[in-house]
Amino acid sequence: MKTFYRTHTCGELRLTHQNETVTLCGWIQRIRELKGQNFIDLRDRYGITQLVFSPQYHQELYEKSKHLQRETVIQITGKVIERFSKNLLLPTGEIEIIVQDLTVLNTAKTPPFLIENETDGSEELRMQYRYLDIRRPVLRDNLILRHKFTQAVRNYMDSQGFIEIETPVLIKSTPEGARDFVVPSRMNKGQFYALPQSPQTFKQLLMVAGMDKYFQIVKCFRDEDLRADRQPEFTQIDCEMSFVHQEDVLQTFEGLVKHLFKTLKGIEIPDLPRMTYDEAIRNYGTDKPDLRFDMKFTELNEVAKGHGFSVFDSAELVVGICAKGAGNFTRKQIDYLTNFVKKPQIGASGLVHARIESDGSIKSSVDKFYSPEQLLKWKEKCKAEPGDLILILSGNADKVRKQLSELRLEVAAQLGLRDKDKYACLWVVDFPLLEWNEEDKRWYAMHHPFTSPKKEDIHLLGVDNARVRANAYDLVINGVEIGGGSVRIHDRRLQSKMFEVLGLSQQEAEHKFGFLMNAFEYGAPPHAGCAFGLDRWVMLFAGADSIREVMAFPKNNMGRDVMIDAPSTIDDSLMQELGIQIQVEKE
Amino acid sequence: MKTFYRTHTCGELRLTHQNETVTLCGWIQRIRELKGQNFIDLRDRYGITQLVFSPQYHQELYEKSKHLQRETVIQITGKVIERFSKNLLLPTGEIEIIVQDLTVLNTAKTPPFLIENETDGSEELRMQYRYLDIRRPVLRDNLILRHKFTQAVRNYMDSQGFIEIETPVLIKSTPEGARDFVVPSRMNKGQFYALPQSPQTFKQLLMVAGMDKYFQIVKCFRDEDLRADRQPEFTQIDCEMSFVHQEDVLQTFEGLVKHLFKTLKGIEIPDLPRMTYDEAIRNYGTDKPDLRFDMKFTELNEVAKGHGFSVFDSAELVVGICAKGAGNFTRKQIDYLTNFVKKPQIGASGLVHARIESDGSIKSSVDKFYSPEQLLKWKEKCKAEPGDLILILSGNADKVRKQLSELRLEVAAQLGLRDKDKYACLWVVDFPLLEWNEEDKRWYAMHHPFTSPKKEDIHLLGVDNARVRANAYDLVINGVEIGGGSVRIHDRRLQSKMFEVLGLSQQEAEHKFGFLMNAFEYGAPPHAGCAFGLDRWVMLFAGADSIREVMAFPKNNMGRDVMIDAPSTIDDSLMQELGIQIQVEKE
Repeated sequence: MKTFYRTHTCGELRLTHQNETVTLCGWIQRIRELKGQNFIDLRDRYGITQLVFSPQYHQELYEKSKHLQRETVIQITGKVIERFSKNLLLPTGEIEIIVQDLTVLNTAKTPPFLIENETDGSEELRMQYRYLDIRRPVLRDNLILRHKFTQAVRNYMDSQGFIEIETPVLIKSTPEGARDFVVPSRMNKGQFYALPQSPQTFKQLLMVAGMDKYFQIVKCFRDEDLRADRQPEFTQIDCEMSFVHQEDVLQTFEGLVKHLFKTLKGIEIPDLPRMTYDEAIRNYGTDKPDLRFDMKFTELNEVAKGHGFSVFDSAELVVGICAKGAGNFTRKQIDYLTNFVKKPQIGASGLVHARIESDGSIKSSVDKFYSPEQLLKWKEKCKAEPGDLILILSGNADKVRKQLSELRLEVAAQLGLRDKDKYACLWVVDFPLLEWNEEDKRWYAMHHPFTSPKKEDIHLLGVDNARVRANAYDLVINGVEIGGGSVRIHDRRLQSKMFEVLGLSQQEAEHKFGFLMNAFEYGAPPHAGCAFGLDRWVMLFAGADSIREVMAFPKNNMGRDVMIDAPSTIDDSLMQELGIQIQVEKE
Repeated sequence: MKTFYRTHTCGELRLTHQNETVTLCGWIQRIRELKGQNFIDLRDRYGITQLVFSPQYHQELYEKSKHLQRETVIQITGKVIERFSKNLLLPTGEIEIIVQDLTVLNTAKTPPFLIENETDGSEELRMQYRYLDIRRPVLRDNLILRHKFTQAVRNYMDSQGFIEIETPVLIKSTPEGARDFVVPSRMNKGQFYALPQSPQTFKQLLMVAGMDKYFQIVKCFRDEDLRADRQPEFTQIDCEMSFVHQEDVLQTFEGLVKHLFKTLKGIEIPDLPRMTYDEAIRNYGTDKPDLRFDMKFTELNEVAKGHGFSVFDSAELVVGICAKGAGNFTRKQIDYLTNFVKKPQIGASGLVHARIESDGSIKSSVDKFYSPEQLLKWKEKCKAEPGDLILILSGNADKVRKQLSELRLEVAAQLGLRDKDKYACLWVVDFPLLEWNEEDKRWYAMHHPFTSPKKEDIHLLGVDNARVRANAYDLVINGVEIGGGSVRIHDRRLQSKMFEVLGLSQQEAEHKFGFLMNAFEYGAPPHAGCAFGLDRWVMLFAGADSIREVMAFPKNNMGRDVMIDAPSTIDDSLMQELGIQIQVEKE
């Protein structure tokens, strides 16, 4: 005995259903009175179907329909007929339903904002009524895309022999980098679990356990201040393989990248280019270059220094980009770019520019220091052509590259080159193993402390740390770091050495990671892996501007869920059971 | 350029590979010296392959192989040849590899226990070295089964139009039943997140949001004392649907049950029988009857009372089971059963038995109170036949049913009726909405506070609570409650009424669940759902005895992960940042 509330969804009726009697359920999206009839758009997850209430068919229902309100939940039964004025933008736009029976399943108060893609609600308000926000097609479709995305990931990984294994959420606090969220233990008073920042050590233990190929789509947690589109909980596609070299990992996951583009975007992408970290920094000033457009850096020391322009003469590096076709930028646009690079977040002291005129001559902002012939050398170096604009920064090499990288993105945005429907993927490889932190006066792992140095660089470890390269790699799409990974250390001595270089005492290393180093003594296979940020990748595919738009229930930038009002206070009795008390200093 | 460490796994070589040169990697499972050759079983996730080191082929390697130890990780290259003495129990048992090259990838200390299915390690020791324990084929296969299980669940749910949506892990503490794990918030000092005991309210909000069909395989958390086979974190298959009646849910998930049995066990199971809660209690003394065998209860008041046996005469209920073919139980076996029911956990005061002799006559333990004719009526009622054993308990109806239920399971175990390879599934339906707690002197929701009473019983709510039935259902397999669910309340007033009946003040209800009740005012569709315990279901399919055997990294019964040594102390500085301090009383 089927007892469904409905025979069809609001997205499936077509002309072929003409004259059928159907039952639909959904929300009232829109009500229009037209020529003495009431037209209602009925919405559910699957689409919208037009209902007709007409005195000609049913006087009483027609009267009743006049009192219906937006977002009310109704069930109707009626006959499918061909529409007089068709809406071919809608899959169901060729039919409508003459309503013969109506049940109000639930009433609705007037929503606090428009439930449409272009809404009038502030983000804070929409977060508070997230269950209404998700009714907007754009959010609904993002969540559906996310579902399809994880299905596609799982199907690909399964087809490649990977096993999804759940690792624990209640683990041990071993902060190295970001802050852990902790959970007081009631059964072990005075002690705490931590929520994982990643399942790194567990997946390595699974390799020691012989599981060979592991993956997991898994929640991770970081207690950071939530600037810049971060969330305290986020989701990773986490992977690890045994008996592999870096090349095997890159090929395996290049397969995943291609599969996802094919399945979800219908795009066959070419083999991923590879770029070393050094090349990326030298040519784009960043380890996550946006390759949807070229605009490579040109180093200009040779042609720019020694001509009396003291700004360049005193700079470690003079470096420029050639913005194709930007020669027609107005004074105002160039002033905007100058102000852009001078912002404190960027920190440049000024911007030099040179236009290539249609006759091939050059007009620069530093004409008084350079002869036309000298400027022609700039043009040559930059491979600039008539109509192009050369933009140049100078200063300390590291800093100026970062500044020019920001400028490159800004100019590209102005030129419309950061097209959301275009995708450029690449692998960045050969990362440095370590980076020096001037503030703490110590070395930090650039990837994480379990990353293996390149074999040929191991002898430099502890000797010339800056020169040690890692078997580490990042996947970059459209200038966004989507994920990365590394070949891991699988040798206890090398791991100890690494901890030593990172300034961990032997005791600390033992306390925090003793279990992993012990495991390495019982037959650890060579292994490598990677992890990708699911939220960010789905956001990219959805063309969304924030990861909050691809999560069902995100938190705001104070880490609050304003809908359920969490976090919140808890009962004293629970705190007593947990053996903790609140100790908040007045601020 | 493929650079794999290996050309094949240890599970895939067959006679067809004869004379091929292959490279394998793996762990040394076993070393045997035989007729001046060394035979090594090389193991990886995929199987075992026999390697031969022979002085006849390679003197040096033969010498080297003598120093290899168990669990050492090696890489070998060699030639596949047909084995002289084949082992047809092994898929690779027709071939072996003449080793021509050997690299030790990592050495191994002697493992603290035997890495075989029948191991000599205690559970505590194996938990400490879980990465070695998982090398045992039985655990490895359980994890692989779990992976296949979740893949099968996801593929089925996807095919039925369900969308997997991640709900947050950091939520609000709303304890109602078990204790929450909590997470102090650094950005909102003095406040706490809670880890979800289930995503119940979020999935209901997703229905209000119009997502129509939701599912999620999701970690849940409960801070309970870990008696029995519980874990602080466990995994649920969580589902919710809109515009459905109970019948629709049962049919949808009966489909899932059938799909899983078919895909994972190769079994076509029949339609699931349904049983009301009342029937289950009356016939089996439990709401999760094991139907692999019959042994239904027979109520015997009519024939047992009023014959001068005061134990029965004073009892509210005399009830028995007929154990088919147990008439030959020895005195000792019956004494054992008598002691079993007298255990404090069971709490019966005695056990009456009656054997049906081969001539049809009856020999009971209470012959002095009953005439043979009277005893024949017992036999008739119980449908007992020669060779059967009738076992009878008496007392307070509720208590005696529970006791007899335990006895029924024990007798079935002794008769070999609890066969792990046999499966009996059913739906138990029509649960009471509420149950009275004598200790707290209040009503508790039997399922949870969001469960809808049956329409026809709503008028009894607050009037005669005990008689209110719920639209709630449980899936029971082999006497284990695998999951359950209910039609939910989707009306604010009814939800308020429910909270009132549960003794929540309006203020408390508003504080804890205000967001849900508010959501109900903006067009909440009728909805229903269910959740299944993944760990328990996989355990059942794996034939395992504990959920710890189907989890990669379980905790012990003090909630500790003894491998990583969690929970543990954290730095004072972190506690200060979190605004908490430890306050442990001396015990």
